[in-house]
Amino acid sequence: MDFPSFLTSLATSFLIFVVLMFLFAWLSRKPGNVVVYFPNRILKGVDPLEGGSRPRNPFAWIRECMSSTEKDVINMSGLDTAVYFVFLSTVLGILVLSGIILLPALLPVSATDVNIKSASKNTTGKGTFDDFDKLSIGNVTAKSPRLWAFLVAVYWVSFVTYYLLWKAYNHVSALRAEALMSSEVRPQQFAVLIRDIPAVPKGQTIKKHVDSYFESIYRDEFYRSMVVTNNKEVNKIYKELEGYKKKLARAEAIYAGSKKGGTGEGTRPTTKTGCLGLFGNKVDSIDYFNKKINELVPKLEAEQKVTLREKQQRSALVFFSSRVTAAAAAQSLHAQMVDKWTAIDAPEPRDLLWSNLKIKFFERQLRQYLIYILVALTILFYMIPIGIISAFTTLSNLKKLLPFIKAVVDIGALKTVLEAYLPQIALLVFLAMLPKLLLFLSKVEGIPSESHAIRAASGKYFYFSVLNVFIGVTLSASLFSTFKTIQDHPSSIITVLSDSLPGNATFFVTFVALKFFVGYGLELSRIVPLIIYHLKRKYLCKTEAERKEAWLPGDLSYGTRIPGDLLVITIVFCYSCISPLIIPFGVLYFALGWLILRNQALNVYVPKYESYGRMWPHIFLRVVAALILFQVTMFGYLGSKRFVFAPFLIPLIIISLIFAFICNKKFYRSFCNTALEVASHNLKESPNMEHIYRSYIPKSLCSEKPDEDHFDDALSHVSRTESSV
Amino acid sequence: MDFPSFLTSLATSFLIFVVLMFLFAWLSRKPGNVVVYFPNRILKGVDPLEGGSRPRNPFAWIRECMSSTEKDVINMSGLDTAVYFVFLSTVLGILVLSGIILLPALLPVSATDVNIKSASKNTTGKGTFDDFDKLSIGNVTAKSPRLWAFLVAVYWVSFVTYYLLWKAYNHVSALRAEALMSSEVRPQQFAVLIRDIPAVPKGQTIKKHVDSYFESIYRDEFYRSMVVTNNKEVNKIYKELEGYKKKLARAEAIYAGSKKGGTGEGTRPTTKTGCLGLFGNKVDSIDYFNKKINELVPKLEAEQKVTLREKQQRSALVFFSSRVTAAAAAQSLHAQMVDKWTAIDAPEPRDLLWSNLKIKFFERQLRQYLIYILVALTILFYMIPIGIISAFTTLSNLKKLLPFIKAVVDIGALKTVLEAYLPQIALLVFLAMLPKLLLFLSKVEGIPSESHAIRAASGKYFYFSVLNVFIGVTLSASLFSTFKTIQDHPSSIITVLSDSLPGNATFFVTFVALKFFVGYGLELSRIVPLIIYHLKRKYLCKTEAERKEAWLPGDLSYGTRIPGDLLVITIVFCYSCISPLIIPFGVLYFALGWLILRNQALNVYVPKYESYGRMWPHIFLRVVAALILFQVTMFGYLGSKRFVFAPFLIPLIIISLIFAFICNKKFYRSFCNTALEVASHNLKESPNMEHIYRSYIPKSLCSEKPDEDHFDDALSHVSRTESSV
Repeated sequence: MDFPSFLTSLATSFLIFVVLMFLFAWLSRKPGNVVVYFPNRILKGVDPLEGGSRPRNPFAWIRECMSSTEKDVINMSGLDTAVYFVFLSTVLGILVLSGIILLPALLPVSATDVNIKSASKNTTGKGTFDDFDKLSIGNVTAKSPRLWAFLVAVYWVSFVTYYLLWKAYNHVSALRAEALMSSEVRPQQFAVLIRDIPAVPKGQTIKKHVDSYFESIYRDEFYRSMVVTNNKEVNKIYKELEGYKKKLARAEAIYAGSKKGGTGEGTRPTTKTGCLGLFGNKVDSIDYFNKKINELVPKLEAEQKVTLREKQQRSALVFFSSRVTAAAAAQSLHAQMVDKWTAIDAPEPRDLLWSNLKIKFFERQLRQYLIYILVALTILFYMIPIGIISAFTTLSNLKKLLPFIKAVVDIGALKTVLEAYLPQIALLVFLAMLPKLLLFLSKVEGIPSESHAIRAASGKYFYFSVLNVFIGVTLSASLFSTFKTIQDHPSSIITVLSDSLPGNATFFVTFVALKFFVGYGLELSRIVPLIIYHLKRKYLCKTEAERKEAWLPGDLSYGTRIPGDLLVITIVFCYSCISPLIIPFGVLYFALGWLILRNQALNVYVPKYESYGRMWPHIFLRVVAALILFQVTMFGYLGSKRFVFAPFLIPLIIISLIFAFICNKKFYRSFCNTALEVASHNLKESPNMEHIYRSYIPKSLCSEKPDEDHFDDALSHVSRTESSV
Repeated sequence: MDFPSFLTSLATSFLIFVVLMFLFAWLSRKPGNVVVYFPNRILKGVDPLEGGSRPRNPFAWIRECMSSTEKDVINMSGLDTAVYFVFLSTVLGILVLSGIILLPALLPVSATDVNIKSASKNTTGKGTFDDFDKLSIGNVTAKSPRLWAFLVAVYWVSFVTYYLLWKAYNHVSALRAEALMSSEVRPQQFAVLIRDIPAVPKGQTIKKHVDSYFESIYRDEFYRSMVVTNNKEVNKIYKELEGYKKKLARAEAIYAGSKKGGTGEGTRPTTKTGCLGLFGNKVDSIDYFNKKINELVPKLEAEQKVTLREKQQRSALVFFSSRVTAAAAAQSLHAQMVDKWTAIDAPEPRDLLWSNLKIKFFERQLRQYLIYILVALTILFYMIPIGIISAFTTLSNLKKLLPFIKAVVDIGALKTVLEAYLPQIALLVFLAMLPKLLLFLSKVEGIPSESHAIRAASGKYFYFSVLNVFIGVTLSASLFSTFKTIQDHPSSIITVLSDSLPGNATFFVTFVALKFFVGYGLELSRIVPLIIYHLKRKYLCKTEAERKEAWLPGDLSYGTRIPGDLLVITIVFCYSCISPLIIPFGVLYFALGWLILRNQALNVYVPKYESYGRMWPHIFLRVVAALILFQVTMFGYLGSKRFVFAPFLIPLIIISLIFAFICNKKFYRSFCNTALEVASHNLKESPNMEHIYRSYIPKSLCSEKPDEDHFDDALSHVSRTESSV
């Protein structure tokens, strides 16, 4: 890419960003859009437009974001979001501090050397090197003592990173402790998730087995247990019932609307009983749905009873009357064999992956390793599944599988286009589906909570993107084109790398710029959700519930956002010394990201669950991994420049490893378990154990008559006289 | 070694063994030796010679050992000893089951082939191969399908090992659980060792800091804490005082003896006040020691007070009123930072290494890694320290350092002998000191208990012996002699290995035989302790306490015994298929070991402490390591025989790794922590907390007036109204 086209692409991106920002300023002031731009505030019961009807300054949101404190973020969006901002500001700090030193120090060192002119004339002769590349390390001649400056720069970046990451880890750890020692009663702090319950003695139910086991260990603090049941069937019925209830509400709303509109009588809506409401007999909707609901309610109740009684599984939630006991129980070995009665901190009720709870200890281990191998293979050879997909999606194969499309694809022009693009489309589909695939695979591992599965998936996604986007682009841009040279002279691989790394800098600068200008512009303006919402509201939504569903914003989706940010930090790290001009772009990326996501966190997104910052150790480790990749790259690069002091970077790599080890050792355990000193803080009020217990009952199992007591049930009380504290 | 000399050495060893056994039968019947042969029984208060004066059958002890149950061993010698016997019997079982199949299967396969004759004629021409070697795999021609038999044999040995080790691990785990759930009150089950106490808030003592911390977490179950103090000074004074008390008792005994013996008046013994009692003024012993004691008692009391008040360290023992709470506390994270308030199960009082308790978290980590590196270097390059030692011990150096020996070593003949043997003597001294050195290094790691340090040292010793004895002998016997060949043709290393492995079998058979016949013979007959005891009794001991000290037997010394046994099992494993005739010797080793040590455990040795079988996971892992070494050796060996199916052993190696991983995962944690279900078993009586607490006070800090209450002391009570349960 030459310099003018680089500037053009940059300018275009910037223009798009400015347009989107003004669009946001204009659209967000319209009262009809308030639910799209301020859903989090509405759900939290905060006035979305503070200051009322006063015409909002288009950039007021910036001031608001800048003045918001960490406490505001925690209050509005939870600790996980606050930790995400710690990550953003830490990386921002690292890049700013690096840039302050690196830009004024390295640019002159590069610019005043003469390597590129001679190189471009003598060897490649492509003439693609330009002013941009003259500011990179590529312009420094081999063996030059100027390379010392770059070596020292690597040390500077590394130590800045250590210092700020250390501070950030301390800060996040303190935030987590503060959140966990909060005086609010939170159900998950009183519960422990027990898995791998061993075989039940004859004549006993699992429920009794669990109760007697924990009663014998925790005499006074044990409150009650809830055996996990197989809810597949009951969930199905419940979903069906809820569906009919929604349809009924909708039919009633239509009926009421038609009454208002025309004759005053109104037309009763009708529905078809067959497949998808498109075929079958036409019946009166309201009557039909009422009938269906009346049929399903007793069916649900019967199924609930069967589930609670007969579908108990080898897993349970155990409730304690004290936070300290629950915290200690979650980290203690209960049975002599580790694969029996395993205990972990209970996730939040909404965070639990119920269907994974029954998976046995060694099966979990096995699944985990199999998934690791599978993902490693996917990451390394991701071209193979794509190849398979594209093989299936060639025209001749499609024609065989789906004969009816034959007529369409035999048109000449269309055929050419399809044949050319089908493999690329397959690749795009695969890349778009990858996060979902990784999340699915992570869930298959047997992880007990949604948030943990997302962490696992995002870790995998990070390695995938670093390997394929970063290393893939760097190598494929240069290696494949010069593959022949390498085959003949294997040692020339270093020369190729050394020539190509600085050349790729512009590509990545464009990549980062595109990502933040267009990506964050779209993020802020929320064009897509806005359009979808308005379309739905106009043509589909009839009831208030449906309307609410149309604007519900979802969460920040860390699962893909964090790997993306980590990819950017990896790229910026690796090019920070090679081509220091990338640093300002990195700073812009994280500064804009901080600003815009601050707005989104405060106003838009609603967190699905709270994991108390357990994402942080994963982020931390991957930032260190990026740093080490940077150090190794620089070591290799300086080596390829035949700089004899390049081995001075080896101690730095070792320091990085020791740094990661010490941080992990010092902080990590408190992210897995709750420290007892934290759990022992006083509560505002003595906990309502019945309430805590009820919060874990899945909706589909909530009985309509709450006082009914089924003995032997998965939910039933033991014969204890005083049940609450 | 040729066959006759092998037989000679075997016969000699056996003869020595028989002689020693008869010696034992004869000596142990003499009443005067009862304290040497039955000290454990005497200390346990069991009649040493059951059946009284009835003349003992010389082999009665064999019957007794055979009929003793595991329960007897646990009662007489503790769980650690019982676990050691589980190890012996498991290995015995593995070897017997292997031998039953391997001997009749492999010997004919080898014996009927013809490789050796041709080989010895064609290549080496040394003619050292004999009948013994004809029964080994060396006699099978390369690429022969007969090698299948050996490959299958490896599988057989491996699966027998898996099965018996699995059973043994289960058994030991159950034994440990049983011991821990015993209804006896054991102080260590109520205590937790706390290290890394953070900085104390101003105006507070460490003691108060600890008390308030644990009171806030464990409201009711916290009993009391004991801050660890720096006892160096007080221990010194206490030791001095005890020394004078002993000397006084001795002087009084001498005086009483002289009264009885001669005139009835007796002569008061005298002593010299100077260095070692050899120089200085002559004074009356009894008066002098009395004076000294009277001087030291107040000094000790003053030092005790200073220690308790001012030498408190950042470590404490915390006592709980319930076993479950103590067990849970030992495995829970207390502080948000892992390097603060770390908790582990308290070791037994007699097992604690007080001076290590104060070492900080990251210092421990650092020390551990430094020691690992140091030991790894020692193991790999153990010739270097020996070289240094021998350099210092060459005659010319010694002469410089110790000029007075000059006269002696200048005698011609002596000089030659000394010059020849000094390096070897240095090696022997180094080897003899190695266990002690490793134990010292392990203690430097910062390990909190004696038993743990011994485990760590014995693990290191195992790797040392396997690497140096086994691999060293095998390679040095062959590789060094043919070093030139290898330098020229590096690929010939396999051929050399393949030729030399079977040849070394006789060496190791002799090694094993010597070890069991002579080693176990000496062990059983206790010749050395017997002689020492009688000499001491006759010439040195005057008081009853001194006599008791002279026969006190010590413990089984697992630290060196287990690595020795593991070395034998490594050797036997590795040669089991190459030269199956080694198996009967291995069986004999472990059978004799079981029998003789059973006798020693029941009658002689007194365990120093009880770690509840925590040695077992170490033993287990090292047996598996030996198995893997065996599989790798066989893979290499079959490969060197150009057997194309040798890679069939690779899955077996992977299975071994998985087996070790699963066992470790399933069982190991319960050896580190006490499972709560085990700790929750009922006690015979409610524990006397005061008694439990007092058992941890070091002898040197035991006040003569127990009711005195020093406030702010490391030992003092908090202001609690009811202190015991």
